[in-house]
Amino acid sequence: MPFDHLGIAVRSLKEAIPRWESALGQKAGSIEEVPGQGVRVRFLPAGPGSLEFLEPTRPDSPVGRFLERRGEGLHHVAFSVTDLRAQLQALEGRGIRLIDREPRRGARGHWVAFGHPESFGGVLTEFVQPGEDPP
Amino acid sequence: MPFDHLGIAVRSLKEAIPRWESALGQKAGSIEEVPGQGVRVRFLPAGPGSLEFLEPTRPDSPVGRFLERRGEGLHHVAFSVTDLRAQLQALEGRGIRLIDREPRRGARGHWVAFGHPESFGGVLTEFVQPGEDPP
Repeated sequence: MPFDHLGIAVRSLKEAIPRWESALGQKAGSIEEVPGQGVRVRFLPAGPGSLEFLEPTRPDSPVGRFLERRGEGLHHVAFSVTDLRAQLQALEGRGIRLIDREPRRGARGHWVAFGHPESFGGVLTEFVQPGEDPP
Repeated sequence: MPFDHLGIAVRSLKEAIPRWESALGQKAGSIEEVPGQGVRVRFLPAGPGSLEFLEPTRPDSPVGRFLERRGEGLHHVAFSVTDLRAQLQALEGRGIRLIDREPRRGARGHWVAFGHPESFGGVLTEFVQPGEDPP
């Protein structure tokens, strides 16, 4: 299953992005707000995948609470799937715990769903169906 | 800069790998010991990159201490570079803090060096020069 992106929680996009751009020699995309998640994000290309930097828009959002608890750092990993509904059904069928049993809109207009860290050895795991067509 | 792999710290490869193989529908490679790092690792393909699962061989190794402090989860991100020495020099020239100023042998026989989380917003960042030829 192809890697899609790696989510990195930061307190401030403004401070974090120039440092990463310089370290990796790559320019980040524009800012996008994802209201459902309470975050503002920017993507930085990394080969065929990318890094997604997430800044909370409110302290009680999932990323806000993550920063409070653990500080800045690696937040989630996302894999690309062609059929998100089929993937969620297959995972549930194997007894894997999901946060989202239904696809929802994520960044870049893509459809996404998160698996629960409990079923992925402590790793918040996202599945992304690229494109804007509803799954 | 292409994504190479994502390191995930686990207490037990034996317990973690079957769960991840089932969740991602992909088979992991064989076990490899990296004595310099005090870890046993297995790679699971994820598109052009991969996931590296790391189990400590001793509690006082970096991954052993990570598990003690934070539990299982995302540990580091690695990018692929064609000239590791040039990359380290460029990073140092920009005042970026490194753990390894010299390339050293990592898993899969590749040459690797780590950047310090302090300079990468809390993210342990690795640079990998694929292949076994000394950089």
